[in-house]
Amino acid sequence: MPEIAWTLNPRIAADTFPVGDLPLCRVLLAKDANYPWLMLVPRRAGIFELMDYSPEDRRALSTEVDAAARALKAVTGCDKINIAAFGNVVPDVHVHVIGRRHSDPAWPKPVWGVVPAIDYEPAARERLVKAVQDALKLSPIP
Amino acid sequence: MPEIAWTLNPRIAADTFPVGDLPLCRVLLAKDANYPWLMLVPRRAGIFELMDYSPEDRRALSTEVDAAARALKAVTGCDKINIAAFGNVVPDVHVHVIGRRHSDPAWPKPVWGVVPAIDYEPAARERLVKAVQDALKLSPIP
Repeated sequence: MPEIAWTLNPRIAADTFPVGDLPLCRVLLAKDANYPWLMLVPRRAGIFELMDYSPEDRRALSTEVDAAARALKAVTGCDKINIAAFGNVVPDVHVHVIGRRHSDPAWPKPVWGVVPAIDYEPAARERLVKAVQDALKLSPIP
Repeated sequence: MPEIAWTLNPRIAADTFPVGDLPLCRVLLAKDANYPWLMLVPRRAGIFELMDYSPEDRRALSTEVDAAARALKAVTGCDKINIAAFGNVVPDVHVHVIGRRHSDPAWPKPVWGVVPAIDYEPAARERLVKAVQDALKLSPIP
C-alpha cells in the first residue's frame, strides 16, 4: 500500500484546540467547555476503523487512549471517563476521551446532542491544555 | 487485592441476549433490532475504567473488541462500526460494538436516545446470534 501523508482532518481541526503529539496520536481538546474532552487522532492516513490498524498501532492506540484517560482524570478529578470512536460524520479515526461529572449537563447520558457546545474562557482553556501537556509530558505542536 | 467472583451485572443481562465467551469477555447482543449491537463485558469484577485493567487484560480487551467488530461487519455488511465504553448508568465495564448503516434510524448520530429500542423477531435474532457465534468461533454459554 503506498504511503499517504497524514494531515489532520480540517473538520476535526476546526472543532478542537491542539494539545500535543504522543508517539502515534495527535492529542486535541474539543471546543466545548461543558466537558473536559480530548480527542486522539492516530497520525496514519487512509484507515477508518480501529480494527484495521496494524497490531502495533492498535496496541499503541490503546496505550495512548489509556494514558489520556488517566491524565484527564488526574487533571480534572472527573467522576467517570467515557471513551468512544464513531467516525459516522468525520471518517478519519478520532477517539473521544471525555471526563464526565455527575453535575455535567448531560449526565448520565452520552454527551452527543444533549446541550450545545459552550466556548472556553481562554485562560481556563490554556490552564487545561497546559495541565494535560504536563500530565502526558507533551511538547506543544510546532 | 482479594479475588472477587465475577457475575454478569443484572441490568446488562436484562438488556441483552447471551452470545458466548471469548477468553476475557462475555459477548452479548443488545435487545434492540434497530442496530446489530454487541456488548463485550470482561469477566473481571471490581474494575470500572478501561485504563484500570492489567496490561494483559487491556490487550486482550482491545483484541476481542476488534474481533467482535470484524465479525459484526462480516456478518451484517454494515457501513461503519461504532465503539464506545461509558459506564455512566451501569458501572460494570461494557464495551458497545455497534454496526451502523446509512439507512439506520439514528444515522449519523450516536445511537443513544434517538429512537426507542425495538424487539427482535426471534428467528432473526437466532440467525444473528448463530452467525456471530460462528464468526467468532464461540460456543454457547453453558
